[in-house]
Amino acid sequence: MGSPDPTTAHGRLRSYLHTSQLLASIHSTLYFDQNTVMPPAGAPWRGEQLALLARQMHGRQSCQEYSDLVAAAEAELTEGADPAARRNLALLRQELERQRRLDPLLVGQIAEAQARGYALWQQAKADRNYALIAPALAELVSLRQEQARQLAEPRSCWETLAQGFEPDISKDRLQQLFQPLREQLPRLLEQAAALPPLPRQDWDLSEADQERLCQTLLQEWGYDTSRCQRARSPHPFSSTIGPADFRITTRIVPGMPFSAFLATAHEWGHSLYEQGLPRSGDHVFPWPLGEATSMGVHESQSLFFECRLARSAAFAERWYPRFGAALGRDPWGDGRRFWRGINPMRAGLTRVEADELSYCLHIVLRFELELELLEGGLPVEELPERWNDGMERILGLRPRHDAEGCLQDVHWSEGLFGYFPSYALGHLISAQLSEAMAAELGPIEEQISAGHEASILAWLGRNVWPLGRRVNGEQLVEQITGRPLDSQAFLTYLQDKLARLAG
Amino acid sequence: MGSPDPTTAHGRLRSYLHTSQLLASIHSTLYFDQNTVMPPAGAPWRGEQLALLARQMHGRQSCQEYSDLVAAAEAELTEGADPAARRNLALLRQELERQRRLDPLLVGQIAEAQARGYALWQQAKADRNYALIAPALAELVSLRQEQARQLAEPRSCWETLAQGFEPDISKDRLQQLFQPLREQLPRLLEQAAALPPLPRQDWDLSEADQERLCQTLLQEWGYDTSRCQRARSPHPFSSTIGPADFRITTRIVPGMPFSAFLATAHEWGHSLYEQGLPRSGDHVFPWPLGEATSMGVHESQSLFFECRLARSAAFAERWYPRFGAALGRDPWGDGRRFWRGINPMRAGLTRVEADELSYCLHIVLRFELELELLEGGLPVEELPERWNDGMERILGLRPRHDAEGCLQDVHWSEGLFGYFPSYALGHLISAQLSEAMAAELGPIEEQISAGHEASILAWLGRNVWPLGRRVNGEQLVEQITGRPLDSQAFLTYLQDKLARLAG
Repeated sequence: MGSPDPTTAHGRLRSYLHTSQLLASIHSTLYFDQNTVMPPAGAPWRGEQLALLARQMHGRQSCQEYSDLVAAAEAELTEGADPAARRNLALLRQELERQRRLDPLLVGQIAEAQARGYALWQQAKADRNYALIAPALAELVSLRQEQARQLAEPRSCWETLAQGFEPDISKDRLQQLFQPLREQLPRLLEQAAALPPLPRQDWDLSEADQERLCQTLLQEWGYDTSRCQRARSPHPFSSTIGPADFRITTRIVPGMPFSAFLATAHEWGHSLYEQGLPRSGDHVFPWPLGEATSMGVHESQSLFFECRLARSAAFAERWYPRFGAALGRDPWGDGRRFWRGINPMRAGLTRVEADELSYCLHIVLRFELELELLEGGLPVEELPERWNDGMERILGLRPRHDAEGCLQDVHWSEGLFGYFPSYALGHLISAQLSEAMAAELGPIEEQISAGHEASILAWLGRNVWPLGRRVNGEQLVEQITGRPLDSQAFLTYLQDKLARLAG
Repeated sequence: MGSPDPTTAHGRLRSYLHTSQLLASIHSTLYFDQNTVMPPAGAPWRGEQLALLARQMHGRQSCQEYSDLVAAAEAELTEGADPAARRNLALLRQELERQRRLDPLLVGQIAEAQARGYALWQQAKADRNYALIAPALAELVSLRQEQARQLAEPRSCWETLAQGFEPDISKDRLQQLFQPLREQLPRLLEQAAALPPLPRQDWDLSEADQERLCQTLLQEWGYDTSRCQRARSPHPFSSTIGPADFRITTRIVPGMPFSAFLATAHEWGHSLYEQGLPRSGDHVFPWPLGEATSMGVHESQSLFFECRLARSAAFAERWYPRFGAALGRDPWGDGRRFWRGINPMRAGLTRVEADELSYCLHIVLRFELELELLEGGLPVEELPERWNDGMERILGLRPRHDAEGCLQDVHWSEGLFGYFPSYALGHLISAQLSEAMAAELGPIEEQISAGHEASILAWLGRNVWPLGRRVNGEQLVEQITGRPLDSQAFLTYLQDKLARLAG
């Protein structure tokens, strides 16, 4: 690859993007530090550091120098130019136009409202007092509506806001994908109520034992200590700090001894996708084609490792004796009961604790409510009741207070609208990719039983990770599986899993 | 204090310095991460991140905008202006003039030579092959000589380079301070050879036990988990990440169970000084008066906690049973033998392993050799032999190879000349401040025996830490102790300690 050629606009633009990547990765490093080691009193200063970097990054993405560079690189494109170069410039142009259409005043107002919203949400959730956050939420809705107006895309408000997470997504497409989930998941949940009872959760593991199990899990899945690092944080996350520096974090939850294990599998899936993105070649890093294509695809990778591998029956057979050895006793009796234990398959009020059977219903509700808030004129004051009614309708459960209702997630309080559907898309994409993988490699459960996870990783590393942003999420699925994304693979998988858990 | 007033140059300059502090602290955060959690393959990218920040910081300190701001703030100074404001501007002016006298080309060359030197030093030390680093060292000497020429201060080359570490220091003054050390320390080392033998070092502590002992030590010395954080790193260091975010690191050295304990005491001394710097008030943070005044004063604080407290007889009485309990047996018999064990009082070849009796002789040799390299025309090729001859002369020991000789320290390979004497000044300053403290509070050993370290911390927090850069290192000593710095307090303390260890 070598150094960029400074005599071409393409080369200068590449240098410019390289520096932007450096700044973004400094931001990631500070975020990682903040969530893993920073003492609490460091927060205000850290906020100032992050704001300084955010201003620098925003400036670089919207200034005249950058705009001129992009225009010069476009002018250099010849008719026979590499389509990859063309796509990179198209993606940069799209993002640049978005940045430049926004009033900097609005950008500042949104940033401030997000910071306020986050602080108020923490208080409101702790106090179970929705009224505390309602005015800030109303302001965020209004600011985001204004943002969509300024962006002036040929899309609805909600769709415009969702583009940053799921490029080219539309409401209609989501409704089409979600409708079968709405219809069939409640029936599957009813079926699941007849499953054999869950093993009693009267056991727990020490932090050291959980750390050791997580480390073993990662070692079997290609964890490389020269490029990767693990740490603890209040909420698990995955972070790319540099082109050869990948971090994941976990938390140990007392009384929930599968939590760190499953979260490690999940975050490792995110990390493997990042590690597998193309970085050596002419039109990839630091270009857009070297980036993850959508949150839905990102989530498909984390969910694949969490649900298709770590919650599989074959995996349970392997890990049942290991958990028993760590615990010093056997609360399960066999690997099958262990498998049942790691797959509760029942509805609950909390999204982040939901398993694959009810998870998407949590998303469907949030998607409906986002549309109402942003496009349907729903006053924020009515959100809690709409939430509670919705939960009762789709899951048959009613929150006792808003902390386990509409205050449970931070997203809206930080002004993130349009993000939630990516989580559900992740389940659908994971299922459809799994079918294609199984068609080529044979059944996934058999691969796991044979200890062939390396083949599974290699398949993803051949087919999914190197695509970067050459295709969007739906195109990725169609290119790999030969058919458009739909929800059938996911529902078929769930039906099959329930039947196997029952039998 | 409130926000800076943007209508005055003073207020605008304060905002500017605030942003510069943010950038510097981002640099510190990356350095901390690099040395505590970053996986090895992250190094090249981290190098680029740090270089980007260094360029930004250098730009801010030497650009026209900043120069104009300083000039405008100077022009605002009235005759009756606060002397603190006047001193801040004088310090900023001095630093600005230094930055502006340097050819940016030279600054870049030095940065590159430093990076090369560091890499070569690692290799040369591992291979015990001085020839590998010699050409890079010669280049660094020549670049630093050019730097001193460009700075054109009314000082010698070595003195000019030392200003950044020890403001206003001169060679003559150091010779005057070091001469009694040269004369008397060898005699004291001879006396120490007649001390009762050291307890056998046939024990070690687990990492967990050492961590727990270090944590207990810190808790008794005011460690506040809301503002402080500990971590592990290959070399112990202290780092200020933000005005309320202080980190220290330790390492566990197998077979050296006092190492982490003493390093923790040492780094905590550095950290307490940083924590005690003035931050609330009109002319302090982010102004120069809110900064540490010199490396010598910094080192005086770390050495005070390491040597005057952690290596004291009274402290040994308290910690003897704790180490015994952690170990599960008693290799000492009594606190007095434990005290002897933590005070070897014998010469060795390695500076960082030297105790307070021989440490300064290591420095005296380095100071002599730096003068010869920078001002006496000593060819770098002759350095190893001059080093070995010097060690034999001052300590009676001759290195077997250069890795335990002139390759042991990284400083010169990174182009750091003028730094070493601050370590010795730290011992002298610590001793003289200790006398003043004892005159006010009573003997330090008695304070420790009574568990009154809080009084000791409070004394330092009243008299030393809040001075910031109002005074330089020597002025600080004279202001607090009523007499100029000299080496007598240190030598008296050592004589007394030897007598007590003997008796």
